Amino acid sequence: MPYVNIKVTKEGVTPNQKGELIKGVTDLLANVLGKNPETTVVVIDEVDTDNWGIGGERVTLRRQRGL
Amino acid sequence: MPYVNIKVTKEGVTPNQKGELIKGVTDLLANVLGKNPETTVVVIDEVDTDNWGIGGERVTLRRQRGL
Amino acid sequence: MPYVNIKVTKEGVTPNQKGELIKGVTDLLANVLGKNPETTVVVIDEVDTDNWGIGGERVTLRRQRGL
Amino acid sequence: MPYVNIKVTKEGVTPNQKGELIKGVTDLLANVLGKNPETTVVVIDEVDTDNWGIGGERVTLRRQRGL
Amino acid sequence: MPYVNIKVTKEGVTPNQKGELIKGVTDLLANVLGKNPETTVVVIDEVDTDNWGIGGERVTLRRQRGL
Amino acid sequence: MPYVNIKVTKEGVTPNQKGELIKGVTDLLANVLGKNPETTVVVIDEVDTDNWGIGGERVTLRRQRGL
Repeated sequence: MPYVNIKVTKEGVTPNQKGELIKGVTDLLANVLGKNPETTVVVIDEVDTDNWGIGGERVTLRRQRGL
Repeated sequence: MPYVNIKVTKEGVTPNQKGELIKGVTDLLANVLGKNPETTVVVIDEVDTDNWGIGGERVTLRRQRGL
Repeated sequence: MPYVNIKVTKEGVTPNQKGELIKGVTDLLANVLGKNPETTVVVIDEVDTDNWGIGGERVTLRRQRGL
Repeated sequence: MPYVNIKVTKEGVTPNQKGELIKGVTDLLANVLGKNPETTVVVIDEVDTDNWGIGGERVTLRRQRGL
Repeated sequence: MPYVNIKVTKEGVTPNQKGELIKGVTDLLANVLGKNPETTVVVIDEVDTDNWGIGGERVTLRRQRGL
Repeated sequence: MPYVNIKVTKEGVTPNQKGELIKGVTDLLANVLGKNPETTVVVIDEVDTDNWGIGGERVTLRRQRGL
C-alpha cells in the first residue's frame, strides 16, 4: 500500500533502469517494513533539465559547464 | 481552496473524461466539506506505463500479459 | 491503481467525512475510467492554516477576518 | 536542502522565466530561513490546460471564454 | 540531485527503519543511475490510517477487520 | 492558479516566516509569469528531521554532528 514517487532529471533513463528502480524500492519496503509488494506503487517522474533547479539555476546550465 | 492531484496511467484518457474527473472531485469537496468550487484546484497527471510500477514491475509488462 | 492526493486545511474534518471523500473519489475513478477500486489509493493531507497560503497570505489571517 | 515544487499551466513559459523562478525561490529560502542555495532543489511542473481544473472545469474551456 | 518521497501509513515506523529506507533508496539511485548520494533527498511521509484510503475505505476500518 | 509546495525540515519556522515565504512566492509568480495572486496557492510542509534524508542518512544524525 505504500506510495513512492521518484523524481530525476530526464536524461536517458532506460525502461530497464526504471524496472530496476521499481523492483529495488518495492523490495526495500518489503524488507524494512514488511509491506506487501502487490500493492506497493512507484511512480517515476522524469523532469526536463530546464525545469529542475539546484544552486539557484537550471540544471541545463550546469550541464553546459560540465557539472 | 482545496488542491487535488489525480495520478493515472497514460492510456487514452479523453478531454471529456478529464472534465468529468475535475467536475466530480470539485462537487465532492463542495458536498462533503462545503468547499468553494471556484477555488478548488484539480491537477491530473498522466504517467507513462513504463514509469508506473506496481507489484515490483512496470505496468508496461503487466499490460503485455493482459493484466 | 490510481493515486489521489487531497489537500485541505486542517479545520475539523471528521473521520466520517474522510471516509466519504475516499469513497467518492474511488467511485468516481471506477465510473469515469473503469479503474479497479481495490487498488485505488487516496491520501488526505490536512494542512495547518498557518502553512496554507492564498492571495499572498496565510489562511490563518483570512480566517481572523471572517473569510 | 529545501525542496520546492511549482505547478503552472503549460502556456509558453520560457527557459529564462524558469531560471527566474528557480533563482527567486532559492533566494527567498536563503533570505527568510537561511537555507543553503547549493542544496535547494526547485522542480517546475508545466501542466496541460486539459489536465488542470478550477471552478469544476478544465482550464482549456476557460481560456476559450477568454478567462 | 534526485528527490524521493515515500508515503506509508503511520503505524510505528522507527527512526532506525527510516534510516534504512533513506540509505536503501539513496544507494539504489547511485547503483542504478549513478546519482550522487550527497545531493539525493528522501522525504518520508507517515499518514494517519484515517487519512489513507484503499478499496474505497479508510485503512483504519481495514485494520479493525484484521486486514 | 499556480500551486506551490515548499518542503523544509521542521526546525522552528515561525508563522511570520511562513507568511514571508507565502508572500514572496506569490509575488514572484505574479512578477515573472503574470499570475493572479488571488488564486495562487502555497502549501508549506514541515518535515521531522527523522523523516528527511540527505547523503543517505537522516538529518537528525547530521544535526548531531553539527552539520
